[in-house]
Amino acid sequence: MSATFTTLAEFRTVLESAPSADPTAIAGATDRNGQLTKPPGALGRLEDLAIWYAGWRGTDRPTIKAPQVIVFAGSHGVCAQGVSAFPPEVTAQMVANFEHGGAAINQLSKLYGAKMDVHALELDNPTADFTVAPAMTEAEVVSALRTGWDAVDPNADLLVTGEMGIGNTTSAAAVAAAIMGGTATEWTGRGTGVDDAGLARKTDVVARGLALHDVSDPLEALRCLGGRELAAIAGAIAAARTYRIPVILDGFICTAAAATLAKTVSGALDHTVAGHLSAEGAHRKLLDAIEKEPLLQLGLRLGEGSGAALAIGVLQGAVACHSGMATFAEAGVAGA
Amino acid sequence: MSATFTTLAEFRTVLESAPSADPTAIAGATDRNGQLTKPPGALGRLEDLAIWYAGWRGTDRPTIKAPQVIVFAGSHGVCAQGVSAFPPEVTAQMVANFEHGGAAINQLSKLYGAKMDVHALELDNPTADFTVAPAMTEAEVVSALRTGWDAVDPNADLLVTGEMGIGNTTSAAAVAAAIMGGTATEWTGRGTGVDDAGLARKTDVVARGLALHDVSDPLEALRCLGGRELAAIAGAIAAARTYRIPVILDGFICTAAAATLAKTVSGALDHTVAGHLSAEGAHRKLLDAIEKEPLLQLGLRLGEGSGAALAIGVLQGAVACHSGMATFAEAGVAGA
Repeated sequence: MSATFTTLAEFRTVLESAPSADPTAIAGATDRNGQLTKPPGALGRLEDLAIWYAGWRGTDRPTIKAPQVIVFAGSHGVCAQGVSAFPPEVTAQMVANFEHGGAAINQLSKLYGAKMDVHALELDNPTADFTVAPAMTEAEVVSALRTGWDAVDPNADLLVTGEMGIGNTTSAAAVAAAIMGGTATEWTGRGTGVDDAGLARKTDVVARGLALHDVSDPLEALRCLGGRELAAIAGAIAAARTYRIPVILDGFICTAAAATLAKTVSGALDHTVAGHLSAEGAHRKLLDAIEKEPLLQLGLRLGEGSGAALAIGVLQGAVACHSGMATFAEAGVAGA
Repeated sequence: MSATFTTLAEFRTVLESAPSADPTAIAGATDRNGQLTKPPGALGRLEDLAIWYAGWRGTDRPTIKAPQVIVFAGSHGVCAQGVSAFPPEVTAQMVANFEHGGAAINQLSKLYGAKMDVHALELDNPTADFTVAPAMTEAEVVSALRTGWDAVDPNADLLVTGEMGIGNTTSAAAVAAAIMGGTATEWTGRGTGVDDAGLARKTDVVARGLALHDVSDPLEALRCLGGRELAAIAGAIAAARTYRIPVILDGFICTAAAATLAKTVSGALDHTVAGHLSAEGAHRKLLDAIEKEPLLQLGLRLGEGSGAALAIGVLQGAVACHSGMATFAEAGVAGA
């Protein structure tokens, strides 16, 4: 189903009219959870996860059969400011690596049975350097949002959105600072591993971007400071909501993109969980701001959707227990 | 391969002669890790896990194809003291549930492609109440160790040991206190959910057990305060070491059983990782004592091997990335 919005205002309207979880399915799943052969609460967070998933899928006994992983790639004009340890051409090289099955996200998608798609967004046409001009025009950001929206398979039952884009932790830091408040220093980290001088340069770049643009509106922050892959992630997460497809958020960049939705419409991320806590310093602060507790904390800072993909296995475990376990009555086990 | 030991002294000798990880495989895997298409360290703890796994499997590019989950069940005489929220007959009922595929561990084993075996150890013949007498004779504890040893498939490439036994958090608390030191209060928790009065009763029972027995030797602590399923877990973990099969430890009870090995022979748990942090209060303290950092922290407190099984998916992800990813040279990607 193609995206129907053609402006940021129309996109906001789509967010405002997004569906909610199914209260009947939540009630049914909660009741079922209480009857399963285990002490009450003994599966910890897996129980909440299964009930949450059931609510969005509209059934008290759901299954996960068709996860989709989408990796969006974008080019960043702000790379001209020397913000990354890697040259910008690595983005296209890594897209080729995704297409040939050689990246981490390929291995994880295959392991957990997810279909993986890659969308490279105008890699030969970088966004503008946001220290000089808005990263994107409205037409450009809407186009990227639409690419993300259209990339979501309506028949998927779980979505992971990943990204690749040399320079995009700089964009994500600027977007996060713009929508959450605070200084460039608080939101800027080492990304794929810049040294102290590189970190100082990144922080200065973020501060200059924040000073240059009027970013009181979150979607304007996405347009002026973000990147095409960030906008595509936001579009994909919005589409997933429309289809009631639960989403696992990845690290700092994905979360910054997602947070623009939550800051636009309260509750816009209710169909999402945080897959992991990235080693990128400001990720915890950003997750706190959107009130998400990460499922995994394993020190990943790769992007690509890798941390979220790893959490597919956990969510599959939660749902498998919920929907597959016997009840006390079925098993003839005495309850507490 | 059947266990060769027939006394605790012989079992100790087996532990002392256990093999080490393969330094050539560790070096090869470390080298490979440095060439994979990702920034150095960007896969965080997954990188360490893959190298650790490679070392025990003796190859720089391992795979996980044959995980084994074994659930050991035992009956505890100490249940007579009213230490559990569930009646003791639930142990046999849950064994039937395991055999019919209805428990959480069945769903998780199936999801991650693990073969699951169940061993019920003399459920009709509970161990002695350790507030009155040693839980087991030497012949009994050796028999349980041997059952655990013999249950391990030498062709497995990953092992999870789970347990079921109403009353066994009480045994585990007593064993942990005996081998690590400290008071009964520090090591005793709510298990499957006893109330305040139940917790006070459990703590008193643990204190009386500690006062009654000479537990200066860790294997004697296992004999006097443990249970058949705890001994079987210890035997299985020792067998896995002999076969160089990596092991994922489960929660408090599994860790208490495993810790008797580490206290007997330093390094006896080098082939193990902690799968998760249980909600059972003293698990963190016990993991700290054996210097293991859990992979997952999701509030589980079910036992059965469920938390460790959930971590199979994470370890599979680590190994899949390590062995499946392209190198910079293969992918034509510029390094940092």
